Amino acid sequence: MTITTVGLDADDTLWHNETLFRLTHKRFTELLSPHCDAATLEAKLAETERRNLRLYGYGVKGFTLSMIETAMEMTDGAVATSVIREVLAVGREMLTEPVEPLPGVDLALAQLSERYRLVLITKGDLLHQEQKLAASGLGDLFVAVEIVSEKDADTYRRVFARHGSGPEQAAMAGNSMKSDILPALAAGCWGALIPYPLVWAHEAAEAPVDHARYVELGSIADLPAWVDGVAG
Amino acid sequence: MTITTVGLDADDTLWHNETLFRLTHKRFTELLSPHCDAATLEAKLAETERRNLRLYGYGVKGFTLSMIETAMEMTDGAVATSVIREVLAVGREMLTEPVEPLPGVDLALAQLSERYRLVLITKGDLLHQEQKLAASGLGDLFVAVEIVSEKDADTYRRVFARHGSGPEQAAMAGNSMKSDILPALAAGCWGALIPYPLVWAHEAAEAPVDHARYVELGSIADLPAWVDGVAG
Repeated sequence: MTITTVGLDADDTLWHNETLFRLTHKRFTELLSPHCDAATLEAKLAETERRNLRLYGYGVKGFTLSMIETAMEMTDGAVATSVIREVLAVGREMLTEPVEPLPGVDLALAQLSERYRLVLITKGDLLHQEQKLAASGLGDLFVAVEIVSEKDADTYRRVFARHGSGPEQAAMAGNSMKSDILPALAAGCWGALIPYPLVWAHEAAEAPVDHARYVELGSIADLPAWVDGVAG
Repeated sequence: MTITTVGLDADDTLWHNETLFRLTHKRFTELLSPHCDAATLEAKLAETERRNLRLYGYGVKGFTLSMIETAMEMTDGAVATSVIREVLAVGREMLTEPVEPLPGVDLALAQLSERYRLVLITKGDLLHQEQKLAASGLGDLFVAVEIVSEKDADTYRRVFARHGSGPEQAAMAGNSMKSDILPALAAGCWGALIPYPLVWAHEAAEAPVDHARYVELGSIADLPAWVDGVAG
């Protein structure tokens, strides 16, 4: 079995992301606490995000717009405008948050890049993802960067045909079972789940049962050895 | 001289875009008219957009956030929350606006696609641009779609190396002198400006003087014959 190409998710695989979103959620619920309790607000925000996903796609800009919309709805328009200003500022802060590779990422990517073509495959706002990659210092390790609006089986077929030797000779690694693993397996790739402690509600999914090309790893540090083993 | 590949801009080249933004500006100034005059508001919005461009990039989501921020600043936070709700709604409407090819686009692309590889090269929100292309019915005519965060000479070098036979054998057509023509010429491409009646303030630039690879066309209907002439 030959592996020529390794695809890597970015957010919560190479650097923190969901942690930052959770902190923002916390600040948002505090800002709105005079108007409603945290659980009700969270439920409403999740509903608004889900409804807007097909229009806004993934990323901080759409999330900021959904927070503003939720604040309006939960307070029947009576929210203080200072709260809206604060939400705008929080969104801008998320876009300028420093990016630092998660522990073990630098070494694992350096090892992998010696033997395989590395492709970054991520959802989110185009400009923001490019900026995060630049800030991470990891950009030179990738032969290609694909920022996509959706991660489905067709996405992986297309990306690994373009930048590698097809999905059968590619392995995909990431923290989201729903976006990084299941569609990659469906496309014929190998898939390595590297769990992150937090999972966004919209990314939750069940693990595959007895799938020959699937593995769950404890850390990205285990990825190079697993890919080498698969590649034989 | 051989031409193998033709790059095409999307917004205001294949379909209306700036017209929709201008209509939204008009609605925005009406909404804020109890607080400030149109000229002052427009100047403030332009300043906010410029300041946010490096964070938000191009597209409707960032524009909506900039409108909300401007409304806050111009009214010192005293803007009615109903106005903010209306701005959010206007932004969502822009994202679902029907897309229809401009006159002559269907025929010109059909003719070009018989002889050249067509590549769509556009800025803006990733998901929204993909959705507009799908809605336009033009998607199948392109061998590749590149949604980019910035259009500079490197962008054109990279795109035409990847999808064609290099920038020297490529022609780029679009309505923006600053984004579609000058950087494409700098990369070594041929460049055809197809003016649209409106130009976004941030896209204005001077035409090149006596550039052998540059032409201004009256309409996209003239593009196939011009490319054929260049290709010899």
